Amino acid sequence: MSLNIVPFVSVDNMMKLVLHLGPERVMTEIAAYIEADFKRWESFDKTPRVASHSDVGVIELMPTSDGEMYGFKYVNGHPKNTKEGLQTVTAFGLLAEVDTGYPILLTEMTILTALRTAAMSALAAKHLAPKGATTMAMIGNGAQAEFQALAFKAICGVSHVRLYDLDPTATAKCSRNLAGSGLQVTSCKSAEEAMEGAGIITTCTADKQLATILTDNMVGSGVHINAVGGDCPGKTELHKDILLRSQIFVEYPPQTRIEGEIQQLDPDHPVTELWQVMTGAATGRSDPRQITLFDSVGFAIEDFSALRYIHDQLETLPYSEPLDMIADPDDPRDLYGMLLRAQAKAA
Amino acid sequence: MSLNIVPFVSVDNMMKLVLHLGPERVMTEIAAYIEADFKRWESFDKTPRVASHSDVGVIELMPTSDGEMYGFKYVNGHPKNTKEGLQTVTAFGLLAEVDTGYPILLTEMTILTALRTAAMSALAAKHLAPKGATTMAMIGNGAQAEFQALAFKAICGVSHVRLYDLDPTATAKCSRNLAGSGLQVTSCKSAEEAMEGAGIITTCTADKQLATILTDNMVGSGVHINAVGGDCPGKTELHKDILLRSQIFVEYPPQTRIEGEIQQLDPDHPVTELWQVMTGAATGRSDPRQITLFDSVGFAIEDFSALRYIHDQLETLPYSEPLDMIADPDDPRDLYGMLLRAQAKAA
Repeated sequence: MSLNIVPFVSVDNMMKLVLHLGPERVMTEIAAYIEADFKRWESFDKTPRVASHSDVGVIELMPTSDGEMYGFKYVNGHPKNTKEGLQTVTAFGLLAEVDTGYPILLTEMTILTALRTAAMSALAAKHLAPKGATTMAMIGNGAQAEFQALAFKAICGVSHVRLYDLDPTATAKCSRNLAGSGLQVTSCKSAEEAMEGAGIITTCTADKQLATILTDNMVGSGVHINAVGGDCPGKTELHKDILLRSQIFVEYPPQTRIEGEIQQLDPDHPVTELWQVMTGAATGRSDPRQITLFDSVGFAIEDFSALRYIHDQLETLPYSEPLDMIADPDDPRDLYGMLLRAQAKAA
Repeated sequence: MSLNIVPFVSVDNMMKLVLHLGPERVMTEIAAYIEADFKRWESFDKTPRVASHSDVGVIELMPTSDGEMYGFKYVNGHPKNTKEGLQTVTAFGLLAEVDTGYPILLTEMTILTALRTAAMSALAAKHLAPKGATTMAMIGNGAQAEFQALAFKAICGVSHVRLYDLDPTATAKCSRNLAGSGLQVTSCKSAEEAMEGAGIITTCTADKQLATILTDNMVGSGVHINAVGGDCPGKTELHKDILLRSQIFVEYPPQTRIEGEIQQLDPDHPVTELWQVMTGAATGRSDPRQITLFDSVGFAIEDFSALRYIHDQLETLPYSEPLDMIADPDDPRDLYGMLLRAQAKAA
């Protein structure tokens, strides 16, 4: 393919790719890409995402680079969108060559973000959850829920999910979608009920506010909490007292302190960086009675890993189309001449 | 068009649009959009661009928002690319609705950036150049040169351009492309010769270094300098002494102080913001003998204006194609169900 043509993965092609390989395999492989990239954390150019906030939502750009490739994601977060029949989160992303600045992949990332978010959650839990935890409480049964359930099944060996959502139709939807997945699925009437016997608790709700999905008395010792929904300033899910009892693990502290559950804590409250747990430089779970908390907000390197994964898949899979996105004059200093030649050709 | 489909303007369609309307009209109209946006400067969410530098170039994201629409541009700058037959600068951009976060336009911006950069230069000169200046020196005759010449013709009444480039083949290319434009074109053997009788001096060279295209003794009084090429840290075109003699006008000081010619000056050296000249809050040229200098680096609002212009043109012109970029499940909370339904459909 010539350099001025950028392969584009549409929503339709992303679905075909995911269905061709299977969502569990895709998430397992994306988790491996993320882990490989987290293990070379220091080779990345990192910056907190660039956010543009409005009263109703946020639009963010999340760039990063490993010196060879540059990637970024455009992503919005608009909780009120669902009421209008729109996605809360939509996204697309791009991968480029650092050496030339030329894009090499443009792709939808609404589906891909759902996959990488769940892959990241399960990857963190693989390192942090109590040994032998096979039951997960899923609090919040929206767009991300099934991906979380399947990633934990594939990567952590979870066999039983207990669902709860304020809105019972969301739980019914999630339960229906997971039928036939091989997971045991239990629909619950309260968060407390969902947490019965669960070694892993995933919270994934979408309100843009300081919510308290979990209060301190609800959480026993020895669990792993995967807090996915609290991911921007003013948006949290856990009561502060739970945080104070937990060993907290984060992706990139400068971003998480602004956006994560720990925005409720002092700016110097101790946290552990997940990449250090993966390289062995820091300790993960050190005690079976400990509460471990992954304060997930989503970091650019995870998107980079996901983009890299899709780019690699396209070497053998046909799920892209060519996009005429980069001007390609015969002589690069002759951009205007390209216009003139197009005019001559059309005349 | 349904909300999940994003209109995409390919390179081919951008050329068709520009040729249909004519480059001079497009640049005149983009300048009017930029001026309208600069006059409501304070309604924009502004941030210096987010740059990722490497040894050979830079990749940048340039976001801004007026509270109703959000725009950003991806742009690279790789001076060594031309030796490899690639563009120094390639770009694409996106416009989105702030209210939903949904993209409403994706477009190539290599050509569009050339147009908006020239439109911005001519717009600044319209406010700053000495009255009756009809001759412009064009130092640097690369990809941006013809656009500059035609924008100054259309917007400022320039009738004569005097070309010079270190590389005579670049001058020949530019001269050839401008034949039939209605401009008198003179090819010169030195920068000094190019500047003879010129009331406007445009420098537009591409080396990523601290160059000195103009030295102090070359520049007389009463001229307007349009310094386009110095636009990133370590990349300048003018000797510092010229800056010290000039009244300096900039787009967005926090960015220009890092990237523009004024990176050579003290961080508190006085500069005037162009938007204030446009609203009347600040004075432009106050004396015919004064040297005015537009230290152009390119700011996100100019891209926003250009994106807005293209978006408006597409209301009546057919130069876009639908891009399946945003996942659109029937129920926005049921992203996974969309995958399942695609699978059922394919089976």
